[in-house]
Order: sequence, then C-alpha cells, then structure tokens
Amino acid sequence: MTPIPVLDPDDPRIAAFRDVKERDLTGRQGLFVAEGEVVLRVLASEASRSAPVAVLIAEKRLEGLRQVLERLPQHVPVHVAPQAVLNAVAGFDLHRGILALGRKPEPVDAGALLDGLPERAVVVAACGIGNHDNIGGLFRNAAAFGAGAVLLDRTCCDPFYRKAIRVSVGAVLRTPMATGLTAEAMVDLLQGREFDVLALTPSAEQTLAELQAGRRTAVLLGSEGPGLPREIIARCRPVGIRMAGGFDSLNVAATSAVALHHLTTTASEG
Amino acid sequence: MTPIPVLDPDDPRIAAFRDVKERDLTGRQGLFVAEGEVVLRVLASEASRSAPVAVLIAEKRLEGLRQVLERLPQHVPVHVAPQAVLNAVAGFDLHRGILALGRKPEPVDAGALLDGLPERAVVVAACGIGNHDNIGGLFRNAAAFGAGAVLLDRTCCDPFYRKAIRVSVGAVLRTPMATGLTAEAMVDLLQGREFDVLALTPSAEQTLAELQAGRRTAVLLGSEGPGLPREIIARCRPVGIRMAGGFDSLNVAATSAVALHHLTTTASEG
Repeated sequence: MTPIPVLDPDDPRIAAFRDVKERDLTGRQGLFVAEGEVVLRVLASEASRSAPVAVLIAEKRLEGLRQVLERLPQHVPVHVAPQAVLNAVAGFDLHRGILALGRKPEPVDAGALLDGLPERAVVVAACGIGNHDNIGGLFRNAAAFGAGAVLLDRTCCDPFYRKAIRVSVGAVLRTPMATGLTAEAMVDLLQGREFDVLALTPSAEQTLAELQAGRRTAVLLGSEGPGLPREIIARCRPVGIRMAGGFDSLNVAATSAVALHHLTTTASEG
Repeated sequence: MTPIPVLDPDDPRIAAFRDVKERDLTGRQGLFVAEGEVVLRVLASEASRSAPVAVLIAEKRLEGLRQVLERLPQHVPVHVAPQAVLNAVAGFDLHRGILALGRKPEPVDAGALLDGLPERAVVVAACGIGNHDNIGGLFRNAAAFGAGAVLLDRTCCDPFYRKAIRVSVGAVLRTPMATGLTAEAMVDLLQGREFDVLALTPSAEQTLAELQAGRRTAVLLGSEGPGLPREIIARCRPVGIRMAGGFDSLNVAATSAVALHHLTTTASEG
C-alpha cells in the first residue's frame, strides 16, 4: 500500500468521492460509498462479499489505519488528503476522515442462496422496509445472531446506501443477501425449502416466547406502520411479541433482534 | 381549542419555536420541543408526565389533528401557520408540520421512584449513552415491555432532546425516570431494594438465555464501545447475549429489547 497524496479537491483521481450525499440519492452504477473505520475493516477483510475499489482518508488517519490498509488488494488506490480537502470533496464535514468506494456484489439468485444454506439455518426476510437505519439494524442483528441470509423484497430500500452500511457496522458487506423479490416469491422459496416462515405481527395469537425454533426458520418482517400484508401473513405462521398494555410498538430492527435471539437460543436439538 | 392563525415567522407568540435545531443544542431552560403526530398524541394524553405548553402546526394538518388538539388543556395555545412560515420559524423544512413545546417534569428522586414500584418490576438503567437514537430506542423498548422506570447516569445524554423523543415514539414523555446519578449510586439504590442487577456485557460467562428472571430485575446497559466500567460489572450479575462467532456486536437499544423480552417472558411465578 503506497499512499497517494491528493491536495486538490478537483483532482480527477478522487472524482468518485465528490458530493457524497447528493450521489447517495442518485446511485453510483454498481458502486457504493462507505465511511468510517469499522466499515473499512470489514471491506478490507476476507469476510466482505463486496470488492474495495478505492479509499480516501484524511492525513491524520493514515498511521492509525496502516494495518487495515495493508490488507487491501495492491491495486486499490489509497488517496490521502488534508481534512479540508476531504471536506471539500465530500461536500460536508467528514469528521471520521475515512471514505471507501466499493463494488456491490453481483445479484444472487435467492433460490440458489437458500439451497446453499446448511440443514439448520435462520433467515431474515423483510418486506417494505424504507428506512435506512432499520435496514442497517436488520443486517447488524442478522450478523450478530448468525442468520444465514437476508432476503429483501423489491419494496425495501437499498442496503448499500451509506447510512445503512454504517448502521449495520459493515454487516451489509458480509451477509449473503438476495434482493428484488416479491413478498410472495420470498415465502414460496422459503417454504419450498422447509423453512417455517414466522410472520412477525402484533395481530398474532401465538407469541414468540411460546415458540421453540425448528431446524429451519425464517423471520419475516414488515415495515413499521402498515406491517406485513394480510395475505402474506395468512400464508405463514403469525407470531407476536408480547408487550405491555397501551404501548404495542417495537421498532422493526429491535423486533428482529428479539426474534433472532429467541430462535437461536431455543432451537431444538431434534 | 381555538386555533390561532400566525402569518409572520417573527411573530413573538411563536418565538419559542424559532431555530429549532440550534436551540436543541443549547437547551431551553426546562422546556423541550417535540415533533410529529405520534409524539403530540402522547403529550396530549393523560399518560404524559410532561405538560404541554404550546403547539405550532401547519394549516394542512389542522383538520386531521383536531381530535388530538381538543385533548390539550384549554390554556395551551395552538398556533396554525402556512407551511412556509413554519419552515421559516423552525429553520428547516418541517415536513411533519407539527411542533409542540412541553415542560420537562420536575426531577424525581431515584430512591422514591424505586420505592413506588410494585413488588414485581423490571427497571432499565443506563450508563454513558451519548447517542440520542439509542436513548430514544431504550425508552421505546422500556415502554414496550412495561419497564417500571428508567434510570440514567449523569453521563447519559438528555432524553428530552427532540430526536430522542421522536425515536422513542413519545415514551420519553410517559416513562418514569430519574437522571443525574452516578453509576455506583444507581447500583446501590437498586440493590438496596432487592433488584437483581444484570450488567449486560459481552465478557460475561452467564448468558441471558440461561437466566430466569426473579421478582425484581434491573437491566444495566453501558455505551457501545467502552461498555460498562469494570468495577460496576463486578458489583452486579454479569450477563451476556450469545452471538454468532466473529461478530459480537449488538446495538445498545437492540440489547435492551432482547433483554427485556427475555425477562418479561421468563419471569418466575414464585
């Protein structure tokens, strides 16, 4: 790793890092921008399913990051700039001083992804999650509890959005996922592979706490507010989380953590 | 409730709503600003421990909110302004179109608060949580699982910060809390009242899943990163959440949800 000094915000070599926030919204043709040390560590690790493309860091961060940067493939340029140049390029005060450009993995066929899972597995499936904090939280929890895959229906927002990656502490980069499905197709694929699909919904009679996880379980989550479509719930096993009277509201990422913890700690040995 | 039309952003009657973001940071001498319909509903309800002081809404929201606004005490002025005036006062585009000014409740003595809890109770106690999303999430989860109180040590951030209230979906306004304690004092107060204080820490040998909740339990949470101070952990029962290898990281709000769900669903009858 040979750091490349950059002193001009208009240097074409760092054009991909320009106007980060605006381009978060318009997309980057298969690339994504990630920020911060935690995420860079994942991107530079073997666990990452996304390839690093380029890095731009503040001068002051170089020494502390040298070990991580050495793990990047040789061909990945590491640009180093004064903080003011970094801020000018990004378009905002980039306190973290670390930006990385990565390439999204090739789309994965959801059926093939599920076929590749072990006999015992937990999968997270989500419909209509439009909030990047929540998508990030889902991935973080999926990784924390060892979910084998995350499936997102076509109405979920992009998990490779900068904030979602950050909130996931990099889990978005390492967790096997399939996106772009319909909710019906997700349920079909899962049930066709003997997954017990739990539709998390406050309307359920069965509570999560009563449930003992079987061999293969999928946690199906809907967006806050509308929740899962009724016809989807009807095709799955509806499960609710018992809450205190008068305040039956749990954030969807928190719901995923509660469900995954319960399932991974009660899984039967049979 | 008689709506008061306001057409001038500089109208002194709505001065308290001026420059919302800047004044979030400097404080408002015992008052707070909250936003959005969900939070307004809590503030206008009997469950709120905070008194509403004034409301400012966009004209387009008046009809839809009439029922909620009728629940406010007569003396609380409801200012109604065109969206552009609202944006000019607040200093940013206030899509939600709803701002409310409230008064923080009088500080509560933590010992008295705990003395007032029933024989069976779960309490959330937090040290060093500096992130408003996390504080908001803690309160939301505490309310969802019926925690009797929230204790915050003096290094936690202000739960009455606008974003924390919003993320809590109003739980900050209704959950009994005591703040400003040292971590040591919190543990003393809890243990003096027969609470089993669970220090949530990845370093613990005992896992949460193995634990059956007793009559009175406190969930003690530290900040992400440093976690709970070692000397505090040593005085409590250390408990860990089992996670998948290589990714032992759970957000503190998610941790609270997992712990509260486990405790409230496994509480012994004895």
